[in-house]
Amino acid sequence: MPRIDGERLLADLRHIAKFGRYETGVHRPHLSAQDVESRHWLAARMKEAGLDPVIDGIGNVIGRSTGQGPRLLMGSHTDTQPRGGWLDGVMGVIYALEIARAFREDPATAALGIDVVSWADEESHFASMLGSRSFIGQVTEAEIDAARHREDGTKLRDALAAAGLSGTPRAQFQEGRYRAYLEAHIEQGGVLEASGKRIGIVTAIVGSFQYRLVFTGSQNHAGTTPMPMRRDAGVAMMRLYNDVQDRFPALAAKRSVWTVGRLSVEPGAPAIIPGRAEMLLQFRDTDLAVLRRMEVGLLDIVEAHRKRGPCGVECANLSRSTPTLMADDLLDAIEDSAADHAPGQFMRMPSGAGHDAQILGLRLPAAMLFVPSIGGVSHHFTENTADADIVLGCQVFADAAAMILDRR
Amino acid sequence: MPRIDGERLLADLRHIAKFGRYETGVHRPHLSAQDVESRHWLAARMKEAGLDPVIDGIGNVIGRSTGQGPRLLMGSHTDTQPRGGWLDGVMGVIYALEIARAFREDPATAALGIDVVSWADEESHFASMLGSRSFIGQVTEAEIDAARHREDGTKLRDALAAAGLSGTPRAQFQEGRYRAYLEAHIEQGGVLEASGKRIGIVTAIVGSFQYRLVFTGSQNHAGTTPMPMRRDAGVAMMRLYNDVQDRFPALAAKRSVWTVGRLSVEPGAPAIIPGRAEMLLQFRDTDLAVLRRMEVGLLDIVEAHRKRGPCGVECANLSRSTPTLMADDLLDAIEDSAADHAPGQFMRMPSGAGHDAQILGLRLPAAMLFVPSIGGVSHHFTENTADADIVLGCQVFADAAAMILDRR
Repeated sequence: MPRIDGERLLADLRHIAKFGRYETGVHRPHLSAQDVESRHWLAARMKEAGLDPVIDGIGNVIGRSTGQGPRLLMGSHTDTQPRGGWLDGVMGVIYALEIARAFREDPATAALGIDVVSWADEESHFASMLGSRSFIGQVTEAEIDAARHREDGTKLRDALAAAGLSGTPRAQFQEGRYRAYLEAHIEQGGVLEASGKRIGIVTAIVGSFQYRLVFTGSQNHAGTTPMPMRRDAGVAMMRLYNDVQDRFPALAAKRSVWTVGRLSVEPGAPAIIPGRAEMLLQFRDTDLAVLRRMEVGLLDIVEAHRKRGPCGVECANLSRSTPTLMADDLLDAIEDSAADHAPGQFMRMPSGAGHDAQILGLRLPAAMLFVPSIGGVSHHFTENTADADIVLGCQVFADAAAMILDRR
Repeated sequence: MPRIDGERLLADLRHIAKFGRYETGVHRPHLSAQDVESRHWLAARMKEAGLDPVIDGIGNVIGRSTGQGPRLLMGSHTDTQPRGGWLDGVMGVIYALEIARAFREDPATAALGIDVVSWADEESHFASMLGSRSFIGQVTEAEIDAARHREDGTKLRDALAAAGLSGTPRAQFQEGRYRAYLEAHIEQGGVLEASGKRIGIVTAIVGSFQYRLVFTGSQNHAGTTPMPMRRDAGVAMMRLYNDVQDRFPALAAKRSVWTVGRLSVEPGAPAIIPGRAEMLLQFRDTDLAVLRRMEVGLLDIVEAHRKRGPCGVECANLSRSTPTLMADDLLDAIEDSAADHAPGQFMRMPSGAGHDAQILGLRLPAAMLFVPSIGGVSHHFTENTADADIVLGCQVFADAAAMILDRR
């Protein structure tokens, strides 16, 4: 059985965290100077591990195994959120690197292939899941031409050129090369911690439906317009949102979530009745039928409010991503391994966040493993996971990988 | 009886609207170049009307009558909201000018005094009701030192210097000079129009209580945080606002109004559960007891939500302005005059907006007359009033002024 080296794993994680360090976290958006530097460092580590590394034309770093045995593709992403955490993404990449090294060091697994990958721009600074989508052929040259950095407007083409990647080919998925795709990640929520578990076995990555609701009333003076004459778009928004909160629990499944993360009224002056209001509503579940039921419920609520008046209501769908189921036999292998190394300390759970595994899952059987996030913190520089949980997760994943390749 | 000249009145209104014209309205904030120009034009018109004009050290334009008879102070303001209407404020100033001219032209009223005033900065670009407060001694030199333009941050002192007003004394209210203060204004709401009336006789200027409500929850990932673990500050805000809307009708009087004109959630990203939310709530009534009842009701709601959790709620009072009652005998005079000129087409009503009359009302009996706003539009360049209503209102006000000075 492959034995991972916990000290080597943690040392690599701490080293790569120096590229873009911010407080106790990391600021390393895709194709920033620190991101490019970290990719070259990663490629060098892959080479040391006996892999054949390439940085492709979109920024993916792929370390290919050289043997002829059955292979897995393993990894995650090394780019980060602005001022994000030190583990979000990169932990799964260094897990894959450490597992490739452990496999090589164990005669029983030395012939097996672990290809290690860091996908480009998982955090959507230029485009959502850019690297993994490019790999499976979902990104056109036209999309790359049009893409700009969401904050500073830099063209993706210019950023690629600055990174020395102009003209470099983009790596493409090869049919038949891999048995499966495996990705480890921090949980980014508080379920494992609250449940007293150390390993999450991801059953599915949720689908997400997003809507923009726009309310149209009459902008008027807040002092001179009597209540019965008002068409207050802010009140209309609040009343509808209240109905969503009251009615969604009956439509949702046990683990569905729904969120209004952004809302606003116009013109937004204390003494002016809002003439327009807008909110973004999203809901997530692992079951497409549940998402469709919630959508029908939302549209019913919208229709009732539109009929009742006095404000107009428009509800536009912005996106519908469908849930991605993880492969059962892969989950069983991870669970068997977890039962060996952490008896009673694992659970099956959905992933409420999106991951590159949902893209690779379109072409390959895919599975994910989670480790606990302390306090459930995510997308913030204070994000963290206990060292012991990091090491445990990697060992569980290494054994699972060996089982999946039938060489336990 | 003084006969106003409708054509002359409308011609002056159209002329002063050229200073800062914006679409069909006017952009003339206090001490803008256009505002200063319009004040000099106004002073010249006052001089032509036989008044003794002065532009004082805060920007008030005051045209003093020279006779020894009993006197009224009449006017309003000529500064405007950004991209505001052509009548808001200035109509009352030109009414006063036209009435002073009509009084002078009628031997029966030629000995009576109408002092005409345009108050500085009623629209609060530097400070609320700056000119009228200065006139009654409520503005200190320290307040002027500290005041800055709410949009561009210009110091009031610098703006006064640019207007050539540094070192100019500020005019002060003289005890015993006036019998009353009279101000005409557009309604800024749709009550007169909806009631089919042409003259509003203002019984009181409402008081206004304002509050900032801050909700504190936990900022988390919208995908990975299960519903029962959430402390969503946006939901907390929406739930409390819903209770305000449900419970205030039972606490309020018939004409009370309440408004949330500004609200926000932080960080305001579609996929992040808001950790903080804030809304500004104000309510207005002409009865202080009603305002106090609404305040107690609000604090009860806040306390209930705070106890229920899961989010924190803070409620801070930002201001409490008390209602100002207009003087009954002045209202009777306006009503008698309206009955002569517009039988059946007048009504008594409160003013839901603030006016300089609430400041002058602290020192003098005060009254206001409203004319209809087409469609109730206010604080927008499309604000308007029918010419016939503008002329009618001025004639009603002229006769009322004569009655108040006992010279009908």
